[in-house]
Amino acid sequence: MKPQKRTIIYVSDGTGITSETLGHGLLAQFEGFEFKPLRFPFLDNEDKVRDCLDRINELSRIEGMRPIVVMTQTNQDYSAILHQANAFFIDLFDAFIAPLEQELGSRYTRTVGLSHGHANPEYNSRIAAMNFALAHDDGVSDTDLKSADVILVGVSRSGKTPTSLYLSLQFSLKAANYPLIPEDFERGDLPSRLQPFRTKLYGLTIAPEQLHRIRSDRRPNSKYSSLENCRYEVAAAERMMRREGIKWFDTTSRSIEELSVQLMQELNLEH
Amino acid sequence: MKPQKRTIIYVSDGTGITSETLGHGLLAQFEGFEFKPLRFPFLDNEDKVRDCLDRINELSRIEGMRPIVVMTQTNQDYSAILHQANAFFIDLFDAFIAPLEQELGSRYTRTVGLSHGHANPEYNSRIAAMNFALAHDDGVSDTDLKSADVILVGVSRSGKTPTSLYLSLQFSLKAANYPLIPEDFERGDLPSRLQPFRTKLYGLTIAPEQLHRIRSDRRPNSKYSSLENCRYEVAAAERMMRREGIKWFDTTSRSIEELSVQLMQELNLEH
Repeated sequence: MKPQKRTIIYVSDGTGITSETLGHGLLAQFEGFEFKPLRFPFLDNEDKVRDCLDRINELSRIEGMRPIVVMTQTNQDYSAILHQANAFFIDLFDAFIAPLEQELGSRYTRTVGLSHGHANPEYNSRIAAMNFALAHDDGVSDTDLKSADVILVGVSRSGKTPTSLYLSLQFSLKAANYPLIPEDFERGDLPSRLQPFRTKLYGLTIAPEQLHRIRSDRRPNSKYSSLENCRYEVAAAERMMRREGIKWFDTTSRSIEELSVQLMQELNLEH
Repeated sequence: MKPQKRTIIYVSDGTGITSETLGHGLLAQFEGFEFKPLRFPFLDNEDKVRDCLDRINELSRIEGMRPIVVMTQTNQDYSAILHQANAFFIDLFDAFIAPLEQELGSRYTRTVGLSHGHANPEYNSRIAAMNFALAHDDGVSDTDLKSADVILVGVSRSGKTPTSLYLSLQFSLKAANYPLIPEDFERGDLPSRLQPFRTKLYGLTIAPEQLHRIRSDRRPNSKYSSLENCRYEVAAAERMMRREGIKWFDTTSRSIEELSVQLMQELNLEH
């Protein structure tokens, strides 16, 4: 059966990332549709808001079907203008701000978006965490491993770098990562630089077939990417982690979001 | 006045990242509160759900105030159990799934979270974009600049790296970045490697005082970080970009989210 097409419009006076994340999660629950996204971020004056209203109505006419609008608009006047559109609304502020006002006994202050520019200490700690993750990617530097929140270990291409970067950008955690390489397996010991930081170590592993596919994209027909070598490295890494008492996750069918949140739970990290 | 404390609990059968992002955005609208976050992700069986219910009720007793629960729970049975808690609920699925079912004329399929593991092509393109951003960070490689969606230019520490990484991780865009250094200003020319890719170039600039603070954290009391040198580099970079017809953003009071979304708008990039 051909999927039914629907246009979904993300409208916000900020970046629209929150509305898009939620909209994506909600629409993923419905099968048999092809959702075409359109984005109207930074609608922070009446001209932009009225332009957006016209565009939504135009789309509605052209497609003969009202679009779905997912909205985070903190300004109530602009919100009211947008609601004149011929659309189906998922309005996050409308749905939750009024009940929250009642629960908190406080009026909301209508600040646009979050304050996450350079002036915000939270923002600076996030950038610092990202710089840390980059400096400590793939064992590049170990000058400051003791300030790491977590040190991920695993064979090359097991998912350490994306997970470290996500932990830093999303949760402001200082995540280093350190590769386990064939020399480590032959020596039969954890890299000596990691020895002082055992409590911070967490392993990542991956199905050898999957590793073979990923490494083949990078260096086809090499020893590095051969299925045989991938099997050897994964088995040796898991043996080492088991012996050293390092817990690990299998990244084969986990997203970096899932890995990141599970790691924080395991390590009792708060962000 | 002392801020009023409230506990906010993020509950999900997935990572809880969507609920946390939305909750953060909503609560940022209320001043005079100190919100203490607690997280219960991956509530995907009845035992975990009942444990969570008990914990919420316990907290409610201890604090003498019902917690605020922000929830994305796709399983309706588990959702019903959790709703027995003595809490104030912001229930994203409850609020929007039923109206969406009616609008789409389709029942929702109750899939937990998004499918964004390795099997998903969207996920792989995201990891590929991140690898691209890392390989092309700070001009490290220019073997494949022609496949870039965007090439950010600017002086050292103007925000190129975090923006590139965010564009790749959040939007699967291939973002390279290339530093403008004093040698470029003396020569008076764009780096020759960038010349073939003018249409992909976008500049980042920053207030010299802010740049001075950021660089001083890295290399205090150096020529590199001196206010005088920061003023010189920023002015020279802006002169060069103006002459070459490269548009730019000032990153001084913009978050990487805002920068990323504005860049996509400017460059008509879709993700």
